[in-house]
Amino acid sequence: MKKLSFFIIGIFISANLFAQQALFGGQEIVSPEIHEDCSVTFRVQAPDATKVTISGDWMPSQGFTPGSEEMVKDEKGVWTYTSDILSPELYSYTFTVDGFKSTDPNNPFIVRDVSSTMNIFIIGGLQADLYKVNDIPHGTLASRWYDSPGLGIDRKITVYTPPGYETSKEKYPVMYLLHGAGGDEEAWSTLGRAAQILDNLISQGKANPMIVVMPNGNVTQDAAPGAGSDGFYKPQFMAPKTMDGTYEANFMDIVKFVESNYRVKADKANRAIAGLSMGGFHSLHISRYFPNTFDYVGLFSAAIMTREDATGKVYSNFDETLKKQMDNGYKLYWIGIGKEDFLYESNKEFREKLDKMGMKYSYMETGGGHIWKNWRVYLSEFVPLLFR
Amino acid sequence: MKKLSFFIIGIFISANLFAQQALFGGQEIVSPEIHEDCSVTFRVQAPDATKVTISGDWMPSQGFTPGSEEMVKDEKGVWTYTSDILSPELYSYTFTVDGFKSTDPNNPFIVRDVSSTMNIFIIGGLQADLYKVNDIPHGTLASRWYDSPGLGIDRKITVYTPPGYETSKEKYPVMYLLHGAGGDEEAWSTLGRAAQILDNLISQGKANPMIVVMPNGNVTQDAAPGAGSDGFYKPQFMAPKTMDGTYEANFMDIVKFVESNYRVKADKANRAIAGLSMGGFHSLHISRYFPNTFDYVGLFSAAIMTREDATGKVYSNFDETLKKQMDNGYKLYWIGIGKEDFLYESNKEFREKLDKMGMKYSYMETGGGHIWKNWRVYLSEFVPLLFR
Repeated sequence: MKKLSFFIIGIFISANLFAQQALFGGQEIVSPEIHEDCSVTFRVQAPDATKVTISGDWMPSQGFTPGSEEMVKDEKGVWTYTSDILSPELYSYTFTVDGFKSTDPNNPFIVRDVSSTMNIFIIGGLQADLYKVNDIPHGTLASRWYDSPGLGIDRKITVYTPPGYETSKEKYPVMYLLHGAGGDEEAWSTLGRAAQILDNLISQGKANPMIVVMPNGNVTQDAAPGAGSDGFYKPQFMAPKTMDGTYEANFMDIVKFVESNYRVKADKANRAIAGLSMGGFHSLHISRYFPNTFDYVGLFSAAIMTREDATGKVYSNFDETLKKQMDNGYKLYWIGIGKEDFLYESNKEFREKLDKMGMKYSYMETGGGHIWKNWRVYLSEFVPLLFR
Repeated sequence: MKKLSFFIIGIFISANLFAQQALFGGQEIVSPEIHEDCSVTFRVQAPDATKVTISGDWMPSQGFTPGSEEMVKDEKGVWTYTSDILSPELYSYTFTVDGFKSTDPNNPFIVRDVSSTMNIFIIGGLQADLYKVNDIPHGTLASRWYDSPGLGIDRKITVYTPPGYETSKEKYPVMYLLHGAGGDEEAWSTLGRAAQILDNLISQGKANPMIVVMPNGNVTQDAAPGAGSDGFYKPQFMAPKTMDGTYEANFMDIVKFVESNYRVKADKANRAIAGLSMGGFHSLHISRYFPNTFDYVGLFSAAIMTREDATGKVYSNFDETLKKQMDNGYKLYWIGIGKEDFLYESNKEFREKLDKMGMKYSYMETGGGHIWKNWRVYLSEFVPLLFR
């Protein structure tokens, strides 16, 4: 150490000094604080505010108005709210301070849902343990670009490869996992916890190792907002041309990319396609339009609805192609929906149609509506059924 | 389309209805709005607030107190502030509403710096064009786990592979790029825009294609806060054992992992190591402790200081090992620092030491202090000099 003495600088380098860049330091407040009984205390400093509320996705909502609760101010200007005991789940919340709705400055864990940002936390236990990073072997999550000749652009795609992929010589089956309207190639790995769910299910021996491909279903984007050549912009709920057949008609660009760039079992028995909401719509149409390609189909709160067909082909001959898909055979046609989902009735009609034509499917009905909580559960239920 | 008619559901599925999950909708406000002259207008709705300020990293700071400006309220409760003309850069900012400091709900682009979150935007042009995603070939950014026998844990690591890596048969040189105190394996790819800088420099022919390895320098963490088995927690500025020699002593675990898992040119001529602040400290010591391993060393605002040596080896025999590194030969020893950096003087002393012993280095002095703006510039200057 003596030889280093010339280095000694005359001042004590405190963490504060070191943090010259950390312009916007968080207050020394713990929020959220998860108590042993699984109630949660939220805290926020807003000394000059007259009203602060918290809006959390565990609170009962009024239609599309999320529930909220008032926080209480202490003598130091810190507002506090303690929840009831919460059941295991990944939760999200925001604060509203004098009419200003924003994130919790003491919780750096933020996810984006379409154009909104919100803080998250996890109450462990039951299915929520699948959403945690546990001390087990982990797969790799890669952000990659592929060429889509059909769309004429390079596009970003998220690919999960299972633990051991890089060092084994094995070939793997592939699940294509599609996002909903307003989502993109980041949605399933952030809001959906897909990598954690796969790591955990594989580690528990409940799922076969597989590659999970999460593409971007908005054909006018090369990548998620902020991640592509359009730069930073406020995302719209519905990108143009997302449900006009263009994506479905060109989906084989993605399959070809995957099958020529990864060690995969490139046959029907080893291909699954699933998606939530709009991604369920896409999965339904892609698996029917290419009716001998996927042995496993998952429709999570699928958007069953008519759309204008820009290709003139994808949405036509619906009954014939669905019957062809049935006649070609498949292993699993899986439908999940919540009783409060606004798409419940259209899904019911679709199931009645399948019943009538004799097309077998598995069905899971949960509580709740059109929410990520359900889509994480559907993924966790669907994955163990694949490639058996 | 006729065949689809049974699907028609009796209600018009509006975007609002579809957005059942989008609990926390942003207001229909554009913020930031970048004008043609590169001034920027920020807007935020806070109808009941009495005072709203914006704090941006382009504003002059008072020591460690960031600058801020008051916003002005209109009759609709929207507060507005328009900046002066801003020069090309990636900027960050936050709002403070009645003493509550938080992010801009209309800008979904947020980065985390240690425990703080802030919004970002880019004013294009000059060096800032390197920080953008341009319509050029892109590399792959992967989050992967590696086994560190020396530390006894699996750890997360971020790896950039250049465009064409997956399909070529070539071997590539490797740059190890280290974060500062409070950072982790996510810092260089989020705050540092490393993937964008590499993509752009490679595309412009200014840099050779290379692999960039971004490890986590906090040896008690398996991964960044929220990404590892410790779950979600508020990050501390200095994790334990980050500067006690343990990381440096075990760094070859990372090199061995990379060289046995990627197609690399595994020799000194094709290895670079660089880091910012604490990562500069790490780079200095790693390149000296393994004195015949790296032909290229980059110290960006390096923390030149004494530390307690838990290994009893890494920080001892400083002069001898530095001289050995010099005598072994190297291609580039690069030092960059800002005139206002609190580490300026200790870097000056270090340069004087190098001068005295005849150890050659390249030196870049910029304005500004201990800030990401400088570290992105240093990376952009350093990378074109490598592997020539």
